[in-house]
Amino acid sequence: MPTNSFVHDTLGQRVVLEAGGAAKNLAAEVSRLGADRIMLIASDAEADLADRVAAGLPVALRWTEVIQHVPVELAERAREAAASAAVDLLVPVGGGSTTGLAKAIALSARVPIVAVPTTYAGSEATAVWGLTEGRHKTTGVHPSVLPVTVVYDSTLTLSLPVGLSVASGFNALAHCVDSMWASGSDPINRTLALEGIRVLAAGLPKVVADPSGIEGRDECLYGAYLSAVAFASAGSGLHHKICHVLGGTYNLPHAETHAVVLPHVLALNAPAVPEIGLRIGRALGGDEPVAALERLRASVGAPRALKDAGFDEADIRDAAARILPVVPPSNPGPVDRRVLEALLRAAWAGETPVGAA
Amino acid sequence: MPTNSFVHDTLGQRVVLEAGGAAKNLAAEVSRLGADRIMLIASDAEADLADRVAAGLPVALRWTEVIQHVPVELAERAREAAASAAVDLLVPVGGGSTTGLAKAIALSARVPIVAVPTTYAGSEATAVWGLTEGRHKTTGVHPSVLPVTVVYDSTLTLSLPVGLSVASGFNALAHCVDSMWASGSDPINRTLALEGIRVLAAGLPKVVADPSGIEGRDECLYGAYLSAVAFASAGSGLHHKICHVLGGTYNLPHAETHAVVLPHVLALNAPAVPEIGLRIGRALGGDEPVAALERLRASVGAPRALKDAGFDEADIRDAAARILPVVPPSNPGPVDRRVLEALLRAAWAGETPVGAA
Repeated sequence: MPTNSFVHDTLGQRVVLEAGGAAKNLAAEVSRLGADRIMLIASDAEADLADRVAAGLPVALRWTEVIQHVPVELAERAREAAASAAVDLLVPVGGGSTTGLAKAIALSARVPIVAVPTTYAGSEATAVWGLTEGRHKTTGVHPSVLPVTVVYDSTLTLSLPVGLSVASGFNALAHCVDSMWASGSDPINRTLALEGIRVLAAGLPKVVADPSGIEGRDECLYGAYLSAVAFASAGSGLHHKICHVLGGTYNLPHAETHAVVLPHVLALNAPAVPEIGLRIGRALGGDEPVAALERLRASVGAPRALKDAGFDEADIRDAAARILPVVPPSNPGPVDRRVLEALLRAAWAGETPVGAA
Repeated sequence: MPTNSFVHDTLGQRVVLEAGGAAKNLAAEVSRLGADRIMLIASDAEADLADRVAAGLPVALRWTEVIQHVPVELAERAREAAASAAVDLLVPVGGGSTTGLAKAIALSARVPIVAVPTTYAGSEATAVWGLTEGRHKTTGVHPSVLPVTVVYDSTLTLSLPVGLSVASGFNALAHCVDSMWASGSDPINRTLALEGIRVLAAGLPKVVADPSGIEGRDECLYGAYLSAVAFASAGSGLHHKICHVLGGTYNLPHAETHAVVLPHVLALNAPAVPEIGLRIGRALGGDEPVAALERLRASVGAPRALKDAGFDEADIRDAAARILPVVPPSNPGPVDRRVLEALLRAAWAGETPVGAA
C-alpha cells in the first residue's frame, strides 16, 4: 500500500480512559479548565449515573430533556437555558443524542464540552453536529463542537445489554472497515481504523462471554472511539451507503443491518486491494479477512440475514437501483447493478459471503 | 495487551503529504490562513529549495541564519526582525534547527507556523521547543509552537545522502520502538508508533536500493512524522536514555549509536511483553522482533558495533553506572548494572543480540 499523497486533519482532543474513574477524571478536567458553572446534560434514564459522575461538582444547570436527532426547538430551549444560567462548561453524560445536544449548544454559545459517553456512539470524538427541523436533518462540521476532553469509563457501559453492545460494536467495526476505502481514506485514518478493528474484534467476544467483565467493555469503548475518529476523517464508504439506503427506504434496524451487510462488502472489496485486505484480516485476528470476520460474527451470535430483519426479497432490485448512484468512486471493488443485486441477495438470504473460507 | 487506563492528548494539526507538491500545497495553506506577510526561514544550504517552494508567495522577510540547538541570542534577533516586518506567518524550510528557530519565534510572537521539512527530524509534529544559553539547553512544551500545518514533499529529501537517510531513519525507528514502553506509552501512541515501524521498515531498504526513488522517500518521511507524534506523546524509554548517556558523555555519533543499540534494547524488553514484541515483529515484516530488526539492519547496511563508532571497552562499567539511575520505571525488561553492562558489551562488540534467531 503506497503512502501516496493525502491531506489529513488531526483534531486536537484529550482522551482519558479509566474503568471506574469517571468522577475523579471529570473533576480533574473541570478543575483544569477552571469551570465553575456546569450544565450537566443527562436523560432521566442516565440521571443516577450522572449524579454519581458529577457528585461534588459546581453544577449550575441540570438538563434532562434529550431527543434523538436533536430537534431545533429543543436546541433553542437548551441554548436559552444555558445562557440564562451563564454556564461555562457543558458535560453530557449519555449516548449520541446527549452529546449531540451539547454540541448544538456549543455551536452557538462557544462553551467547551467535556463528554462522558455511556455508549459506543462515537459522537464525542468528532466535530460533526446535527439538527433536525421537522423531518429534515442538517449536519455540519465545526471545531467548536468537538469536546475538549472525553472521559471514558467502561463501568458506565455495563448496563448496555449484550445484544445492543454487539450490534453497536458491529456498527463501530463497520465504521473502521469502511474507513479503509472511503473517499477521504488516508494512511493515518487507516492506521486508527485498523487498531479499532483489532480492539473491537478482541473485545466483542469478551463482552458476550462475560457481560459484566471490564476488559471487553474497555476494548469496545476504546474501539468505538477509534472508529469515530477514523470515520469522521475518512468519510462514508460503500458499506454505509448501502446501510443508509436500507435503513432510510425500508426502515430496517440500523445495527442489525450493519452486522449482516459488512461481510459482503468486505468480500467484494478485499480482493481488489489485497494488502489492505490482509491488514484487515490480521486486525481481525486471522489472515483471510472475510473468513476472520465470519468467525467473529459467529462467535458473538451476530445476525446473518436481512430477511430476519424484515427486508423483502422483492425489494432487492429497487434497493440496488437506489444504491448505485451513491457508490463512492473510491470503492476498490467493481460495482454495478448486477453486483449490488447479488450482494443484497446474499445478505438477504444470510449466505456465506463470497471469499470466505 | 489490555487497554488499561490512560490520558492521551492528541495535538490538532493538518498534515499534507505529496511528492513534488510542496509549492502548490504551501500556497494553498497560505491562502487558507489568509497570510500576506511571510517570514521564510531557510539556511543558505536550503536557499534554492526554499526559493522554489515559496515562489510567488508574499514573503516579507527572508531569514537565513540557522544554528543548531537555537541559541537564545539568535532567537532574539529573529524575533525582533519578525516584529519589525510585522510577519503573520512563519514558514521554515529545512531540518530540525530551522523548524526550531520558527518555534522560538512563535513562542513569544504567537504567529502561526507552516513547516516544510527536508529531513526526518520530526520537530514539525511536536509542541516541543528548545533554546540554548551558553552550554545550557532549556526545553519546554507550548501549543503555540506546534505548526498548524506540515507540508511534506519527499522530493525535498532527495539530497539527503543514503547513509544519513539510514542513520536518521533508524533514529526515527528507535523513537517508535521506545514509544512502546516509555512512561507515557498508551494504546494510541503505540498504534502510531507501530505504523511508523511498519513504514520505516518498508521504506528504508527502498531508499538504499534506489536513492532517487520516491516511494521509499515518501515512506521514510511519513514514518518520521509518525515517530515524532508517538515519541512526543509517549516520552523517552530505555533506548533513548542509553543513547543520551553514550552521546553526551562519550561524544558518540547520535545516529550510528541508535542503529547499534536498538536491537539490544529490543532483545531485552520484547520477551517481557511478548504481545508487544509480536506486534513490533509483525510491523517489521516478520514475527520474532529481534530477528526481524536484524534482517532490516543487514538489508540497509546499518552500523553494528559501538567500537567502530569510537566507544572504548574500558568505559562500559562507567556508562552502565551512569545509565542505571535514569532507567524508566516503566521499562518492561529487568534492568540492573549487570544487565546494562552485558548489553553495552554486546553493542560494543557488535554481537547478535540475545533473542535473535
